[in-house]
Amino acid sequence: MTKSSAQLIDQGLLADHNDKLAARVQADYDALGSMLARRGQDIERLTTLAQGFAVAVPSWGAGTGGTRFARFAGRGEPRNVFEKLEDCGVIHQLTQATPAVSLHFPWDKVGDARELRQAGEALGLGFDAVNSNTFSDAVGQEHSYKFGSLTANSAAAREQAIAHNIECIELGRAIGSKALTVWVGDGANFPGQHNLRGALERYLDSMRAIYAALPDDWNVFIEHKLFEPAFYATTIADWGTSFACATELGPKAKCLVDLGHHAPNTNIEMIVARLAQFGKLGGFHFNDSKYGDDDLDSGSINPFQLFLVFNELADAAERDGAAFKPSYMLDQSHNVTDPIESLMSSAVEVQRAYIQSALVDRAALAGHQQGNDALQAAQTLKAAFRTDVGPILAMARIRSGGAADPVAAYRASGYRDRAASARPARAGASSSGIV
Amino acid sequence: MTKSSAQLIDQGLLADHNDKLAARVQADYDALGSMLARRGQDIERLTTLAQGFAVAVPSWGAGTGGTRFARFAGRGEPRNVFEKLEDCGVIHQLTQATPAVSLHFPWDKVGDARELRQAGEALGLGFDAVNSNTFSDAVGQEHSYKFGSLTANSAAAREQAIAHNIECIELGRAIGSKALTVWVGDGANFPGQHNLRGALERYLDSMRAIYAALPDDWNVFIEHKLFEPAFYATTIADWGTSFACATELGPKAKCLVDLGHHAPNTNIEMIVARLAQFGKLGGFHFNDSKYGDDDLDSGSINPFQLFLVFNELADAAERDGAAFKPSYMLDQSHNVTDPIESLMSSAVEVQRAYIQSALVDRAALAGHQQGNDALQAAQTLKAAFRTDVGPILAMARIRSGGAADPVAAYRASGYRDRAASARPARAGASSSGIV
Amino acid sequence: MTKSSAQLIDQGLLADHNDKLAARVQADYDALGSMLARRGQDIERLTTLAQGFAVAVPSWGAGTGGTRFARFAGRGEPRNVFEKLEDCGVIHQLTQATPAVSLHFPWDKVGDARELRQAGEALGLGFDAVNSNTFSDAVGQEHSYKFGSLTANSAAAREQAIAHNIECIELGRAIGSKALTVWVGDGANFPGQHNLRGALERYLDSMRAIYAALPDDWNVFIEHKLFEPAFYATTIADWGTSFACATELGPKAKCLVDLGHHAPNTNIEMIVARLAQFGKLGGFHFNDSKYGDDDLDSGSINPFQLFLVFNELADAAERDGAAFKPSYMLDQSHNVTDPIESLMSSAVEVQRAYIQSALVDRAALAGHQQGNDALQAAQTLKAAFRTDVGPILAMARIRSGGAADPVAAYRASGYRDRAASARPARAGASSSGIV
Amino acid sequence: MTKSSAQLIDQGLLADHNDKLAARVQADYDALGSMLARRGQDIERLTTLAQGFAVAVPSWGAGTGGTRFARFAGRGEPRNVFEKLEDCGVIHQLTQATPAVSLHFPWDKVGDARELRQAGEALGLGFDAVNSNTFSDAVGQEHSYKFGSLTANSAAAREQAIAHNIECIELGRAIGSKALTVWVGDGANFPGQHNLRGALERYLDSMRAIYAALPDDWNVFIEHKLFEPAFYATTIADWGTSFACATELGPKAKCLVDLGHHAPNTNIEMIVARLAQFGKLGGFHFNDSKYGDDDLDSGSINPFQLFLVFNELADAAERDGAAFKPSYMLDQSHNVTDPIESLMSSAVEVQRAYIQSALVDRAALAGHQQGNDALQAAQTLKAAFRTDVGPILAMARIRSGGAADPVAAYRASGYRDRAASARPARAGASSSGIV
Repeated sequence: MTKSSAQLIDQGLLADHNDKLAARVQADYDALGSMLARRGQDIERLTTLAQGFAVAVPSWGAGTGGTRFARFAGRGEPRNVFEKLEDCGVIHQLTQATPAVSLHFPWDKVGDARELRQAGEALGLGFDAVNSNTFSDAVGQEHSYKFGSLTANSAAAREQAIAHNIECIELGRAIGSKALTVWVGDGANFPGQHNLRGALERYLDSMRAIYAALPDDWNVFIEHKLFEPAFYATTIADWGTSFACATELGPKAKCLVDLGHHAPNTNIEMIVARLAQFGKLGGFHFNDSKYGDDDLDSGSINPFQLFLVFNELADAAERDGAAFKPSYMLDQSHNVTDPIESLMSSAVEVQRAYIQSALVDRAALAGHQQGNDALQAAQTLKAAFRTDVGPILAMARIRSGGAADPVAAYRASGYRDRAASARPARAGASSSGIV
Repeated sequence: MTKSSAQLIDQGLLADHNDKLAARVQADYDALGSMLARRGQDIERLTTLAQGFAVAVPSWGAGTGGTRFARFAGRGEPRNVFEKLEDCGVIHQLTQATPAVSLHFPWDKVGDARELRQAGEALGLGFDAVNSNTFSDAVGQEHSYKFGSLTANSAAAREQAIAHNIECIELGRAIGSKALTVWVGDGANFPGQHNLRGALERYLDSMRAIYAALPDDWNVFIEHKLFEPAFYATTIADWGTSFACATELGPKAKCLVDLGHHAPNTNIEMIVARLAQFGKLGGFHFNDSKYGDDDLDSGSINPFQLFLVFNELADAAERDGAAFKPSYMLDQSHNVTDPIESLMSSAVEVQRAYIQSALVDRAALAGHQQGNDALQAAQTLKAAFRTDVGPILAMARIRSGGAADPVAAYRASGYRDRAASARPARAGASSSGIV
Repeated sequence: MTKSSAQLIDQGLLADHNDKLAARVQADYDALGSMLARRGQDIERLTTLAQGFAVAVPSWGAGTGGTRFARFAGRGEPRNVFEKLEDCGVIHQLTQATPAVSLHFPWDKVGDARELRQAGEALGLGFDAVNSNTFSDAVGQEHSYKFGSLTANSAAAREQAIAHNIECIELGRAIGSKALTVWVGDGANFPGQHNLRGALERYLDSMRAIYAALPDDWNVFIEHKLFEPAFYATTIADWGTSFACATELGPKAKCLVDLGHHAPNTNIEMIVARLAQFGKLGGFHFNDSKYGDDDLDSGSINPFQLFLVFNELADAAERDGAAFKPSYMLDQSHNVTDPIESLMSSAVEVQRAYIQSALVDRAALAGHQQGNDALQAAQTLKAAFRTDVGPILAMARIRSGGAADPVAAYRASGYRDRAASARPARAGASSSGIV
Repeated sequence: MTKSSAQLIDQGLLADHNDKLAARVQADYDALGSMLARRGQDIERLTTLAQGFAVAVPSWGAGTGGTRFARFAGRGEPRNVFEKLEDCGVIHQLTQATPAVSLHFPWDKVGDARELRQAGEALGLGFDAVNSNTFSDAVGQEHSYKFGSLTANSAAAREQAIAHNIECIELGRAIGSKALTVWVGDGANFPGQHNLRGALERYLDSMRAIYAALPDDWNVFIEHKLFEPAFYATTIADWGTSFACATELGPKAKCLVDLGHHAPNTNIEMIVARLAQFGKLGGFHFNDSKYGDDDLDSGSINPFQLFLVFNELADAAERDGAAFKPSYMLDQSHNVTDPIESLMSSAVEVQRAYIQSALVDRAALAGHQQGNDALQAAQTLKAAFRTDVGPILAMARIRSGGAADPVAAYRASGYRDRAASARPARAGASSSGIV
């Protein structure tokens, strides 16, 4: 049952792909290298950084997403966690940027955790934070979450939700995860439906029980979201609430920033700076949005914002050193693309922002800031952002054993066709777990 | 099979309910009447207006809604259009404010339209605008709408979508409807996915074919929506596009305003005024929202906005007289309430805004406006809005044969329990058609 | 120089005004009282509450506001703090709801604080929180705040801003104030202009110096605002930052909520609930807005939101008892109305929301919440909100010595005409301090 | 009095500047040229396009802007239209991208139009659209615009505003302008203040009078804006209203898009596509924004959006050919930078987006769109956007006689210091005309 990467995308095919593109990549790389050298930048430093970059992929991202109106299934969608892992294996094989997978329970629960772990290892994949689910009712669940989970008025529903989260920790422990991400959709659709303060008190009580079950080397990430599925008041709606709760809970509790979970016009990079400053930045769910929690491909709508987020991360890394290690994950809903293609190109897009942020001349920036030279400070960021670091990313992939052009290599491989044969569509199959 | 209203809520129970409340309603009515008289307002005029008010209910509103994350089914949900009609019959029986139902195809399609018409008549229900659906794929549909319907690049998909709309007109004709509402979710999730102009050209071509099939006494309503299910660009995203298309198509094409389909901060009552001024206001889908297309109960979030919309309708009615007859419908998604209760209280809420707007002293308002007395102009509106017209609405219901307190009467009737017995839950039943 | 209230609006005129309206107010009061009695509510309890209500007015509110495009001056605008106090005296005389004034320095600074205090006392006015100003440069100021004040890169500018705030405390002490409100517009117009984290570090350092100068019985209120005058990043942009800073500073530091200082779609009443829960709710700047910091009259755009804020305050008062005493102030910009009229009707509007919130049947609400009866919970709030408590407010004013209809009495008094004579317009006079 | 460009920035200094950078620019240009050649793109074609690009600058942009809270004056601000022209001359001299200036009356009105025209000619500057001002009262104006101008209830105020606009046409005619841009801030701050429909009727009546005065070869541009200075309802609030009015008025009336005048989350590039499709796209006011009408430097906040706007313009140009000629202007408020520097770098930023859009492989894009390949369609746009076309822009400037690095050359020139000497600060000088 366990497959290796070599069984996903043929190594010979991959080598051919890279051979064909090698000369062009090298020429572009050299041209860019010369341009960067004229700016005092060493392209090799950046390529090494690119090779060291990693962002996790969520197991649920391998399936086609949907909206409340419809889900238009894709071909060859994975039917279980092992098939999801294979798809994630392809993504990592070709991008060399996604060495870990984030599981979602109960969907990804299997009887034998060792089997999972081995399947991951064979594909070169580890396991990132685990995710609990209390935003929908699992089959056979005793108490419904229709009126809330960790915040429910019903003590039984709360206990059930707490127990599920604790089980997630156990499941994660068995596969080597080190964090639990808790997102609850709990909230109200009507003014008056909830006692707003009471709901947060219950949330904190529930989270204290979960926190108590965390192993010493684990973190719990609190993920806030403005709205949806609750449409009037969401209990953990903003970073302020997330921060206050993480502070109440203790040092293992941190805040997770999903780029699509904010009010319109919010300056997200400033939230990142605030959480870093106060020691509570746990990690990210990367995606992009134009309206709400659109879960679009990272960097597809506002790539400059993604860069500015990484600019704050670069600032924090400079200040806090190795202690600063937020967790990175993609979290997208792929409604009109092949999920593997979207996840590959999104991983590259996040990596791109990381390398662009590494290009910022931080000393010059600090000088312009100190001198109130707003124009040159802005231009210093723009100069880094405008740099087309594509050749660096391609070279990093080639050097690490990935594909010069992941999407092209993937399409050439026929992987999706094989998956479509091996995984026939199930009638009436519905969406499973979009966060 | 065909039931009458009398079979839904027992008339004796209803009479008892009203008897019990009669004294209190009368006392409140008299107290309010005296207060209004001191302001020069005749309460009887308002009660008569309230008795004449009508708003349609959508057949799909009788079922529990859902989000992309989950649907938490309710008890006794209707399983077909006849059961939906029964629920709508209850709503009208108790509120006397919802004499028409708006059907949604293909879900509500039946073999014999006469049967539908008779079922409606027995319940005192007529049929409002019919609604087509091309935002999801129907079972057995030849061409998928994954990449659009009326705007699809595929000519076959477009033809299929056009044919479906024309069939909706035929189905509507058979039951006495006089309008087709067209909402398409068509759009793009990525910059570049669509040629924005090309998509609208295809939309117009498709709509011209549908328009050509309209009977002489029909209208087609174009419903715009900012986003969801498309998350980067929606083809019919705003009233400007809706208006331009309705103008292109001809006099039978009008614009439909759903209160939840606008960008944040939009002044919706001004859009209403604009469409009325330019002769293109077709009608409304009433609901309320705080974030996006939340489809919350009408007036539950911002009741003053609902009043201001009706204030514009009152202005238009004063200017344009009987020619001004926009279509009113509720369009909500009930996720945490009994849909019948939400639709009843929402119908009352819309009726309330209508009566409050009838309380506006329009001559005084015009005088303050002419004199640039912004404060007194604002207070003139507020004075009407602040008036608790509840006793008028209760009296209107009693006089028309409805319930003094529709929700209380409904709860007392045991209707939902009977429905739960008669309509056992289907395993895995999913949502059906939320607009 | 010092005037008494009696010199502002003639007591005989006021008595005549009330006499003329007395019968109607009494009749309405009796009618409402009977309706409330049928709901189990005692109107006298509410009238007593209304008589005890107070909201402060800002000295700057007495002048006409403006936008960056223009200021259209009104007639008879106050030219100094003493004339502002007179206008505030009128407001309190007629509404009996605004017994304190909030001063803004340097504009309201005078040589002799006793004179100010006496002027206030003669008019029945005390002094609420004092406000510092570092969002514009004062005449003759040594260091400009063009690039920030408490967060400036320039140590000299920061020291100057700190010293000004400490001086404000001294000035406030002399007139009996007990709190300093600090709003800084500091921020950046370009990505890169600020080191976001560095700016907040400087802010905290500056605030620590100010905090250290607070008398024992004082508070400092941190006022956040999303944007304007900074248009890319505002240092204290949201309640999360305000809360984190107030926590860093200590127990005397609390957060101030201005209703117009939030991102679109923000649920403000939930922020109120959060700050109350975590013991950091300092107070309010009341106004209303549709787009940004529009500073419109309280309750003029979304009166239900104002009610929901007071519903949270009622919840907190029930939980925390007498210890819960947030500070209330109006903060509006009056561009098209007579500021005195706007402040009077806004004070009444805030008082109205307070009384409506006192009408909420909290036991019933808690029961519906506990039973997940969202519909009846929502209706419980709506029942209170819909009640036209105007007769209660009028009766409270009459009983306290104010005017049955403050705007009508004011217009009848000819006060503005007298002010226009006494205070001739200054050529080129510009706006003074809109927050 | 009339100066030539040569008197603004010394040609020798400029030549030295370019000489010093020539080798680096050439090397980067060659490196980029080789990369583009590998993609089948001819760099020379792009450089020629860049040399042909032009965007107008507004005369008022040469002064420091401000907010309603404060204006922090800069050094050496222009005191009259001739000094503004000089500053605009510098901008064009160094960027070679801003050959026309847009004047704003009454501020820029002079006795003798020939003098203005000659001053422009000497500096190589022509005159773009003229702008009327009725959002503030001019000194000595008979009727105030406090309650509106073209929409005022007062017929006299309307007549005055119409006459002013007609005078602007006359003034523009004398200097060679071909268009009038009409932006009115008219609107309401309170629900009820305006009869919304009546206000638009008056607007249309006023505009008909202005339209009638347009010379045959002129256009009038209607500029919409969501809010500010009106904070509840703006008469021309959105593109729908602008489009409907332009349609009512006739073929010379077109719509002008200011990037900061939209509701949050609005897809502006789609509005551009719609207006182009319906033949009503008149032109642009370029700037950037994060919250409201922030008037930040073009491309400083969301450069991808600016690119997407130009992508629509490229699509329209391909479809409509030479007939498609929208007007381009910068419209920004410079609060923390030297206005000359901001306008230079913003002109370059807009030019950058234009060249990036010229890099889009439109045939490939159309193919991906037709094939519903959303991912590759998006990547096709991204590939163009990611290209750092800076070397093309620098080479174009050098070839056209501008500066390789305009800001560096400007700083080296000492122009601002000379201006500061020649134009001493006026006490109390206030802002003049920010749109």
